[in-house]
Amino acid sequence: MKKLEVAEENNEVDQEILPLLNLINSLKDFYTTSSCYGRISLLHDVGSKKDSGWVGKWHREVEFNEILLALEKKPDDGIVWLKYEPAILHVVARDPEGAIKILTAARNTGFKKVGIIAMKKDRNMIEVCSTERMDVPIIQEGTLLVDTGYIKYLVETANKQFKKGNKKLKRLEKGLRETLS
Amino acid sequence: MKKLEVAEENNEVDQEILPLLNLINSLKDFYTTSSCYGRISLLHDVGSKKDSGWVGKWHREVEFNEILLALEKKPDDGIVWLKYEPAILHVVARDPEGAIKILTAARNTGFKKVGIIAMKKDRNMIEVCSTERMDVPIIQEGTLLVDTGYIKYLVETANKQFKKGNKKLKRLEKGLRETLS
Repeated sequence: MKKLEVAEENNEVDQEILPLLNLINSLKDFYTTSSCYGRISLLHDVGSKKDSGWVGKWHREVEFNEILLALEKKPDDGIVWLKYEPAILHVVARDPEGAIKILTAARNTGFKKVGIIAMKKDRNMIEVCSTERMDVPIIQEGTLLVDTGYIKYLVETANKQFKKGNKKLKRLEKGLRETLS
Repeated sequence: MKKLEVAEENNEVDQEILPLLNLINSLKDFYTTSSCYGRISLLHDVGSKKDSGWVGKWHREVEFNEILLALEKKPDDGIVWLKYEPAILHVVARDPEGAIKILTAARNTGFKKVGIIAMKKDRNMIEVCSTERMDVPIIQEGTLLVDTGYIKYLVETANKQFKKGNKKLKRLEKGLRETLS
């Protein structure tokens, strides 16, 4: 399998999520460890996670042409999936009570995949994630499985999900401000 | 929007997941509250969760013809998604230490979406879920977006994911038996 060039931008932190992160990190008993503002990607899946990789990934809405351009370098093995994955946020709370507050605020603002994923002394980690997704296999062993009109439709669908995800993050920011400040 | 007939079976508990559930429920400090052995479905999505529903759902592998038959009654509004969703399991642990044991065993056997979703006295609920998914929009406002050859491919892909999910549940059962018994 040849190494692929990945279409992506490298921002350490997605800029748009900064107000939410700044809010959490301004509080005495909470901080964030990682975050993603949502992602549209072309995943190259060869069956094992270790050998899989990306043909392209974007932490923002994408243009149809960007997807087509990335697909010009499509791999000739495995499956390429066109995906939208929702925002994901990891927050550390000093105590379990604080962790529960984050859980509740996130669930109340529409995040249905929320849980405490680690509990250590002074370090209770909460994962906040949403459920909207798109996971579509579009290429199998180098062969396009769908027409480009359908790919355009998928890009539009992913962009709509991205917009919806952004609104949800704004609601989370508001909810946490009310609960924790 | 007219009410649709849903192609499905109604088993209270998926039979194949029973050994895993029996194991957990045989232990003094743990019990299960709900479980799904993985699901292949045709989701009718009209934008709001309240008004959305199923054109079909199956807690097992499906035949291509079953999908085609279900699609004969396809709705003329919204989007129909062909989906595979992985198994999901809710376990209650009497104490947080027990909850952490479940978290760890599940993560070690390949379940990457695992978290404590509620903590009350004597009632710490853990959600165990995996990440393999397929979420493909196939019909928009009554119009098929893809050809039936591609739908057949999607059914095969969903069935493969289902098989893989089953193996993972067996690993979880083994892991929990070693950790908790």
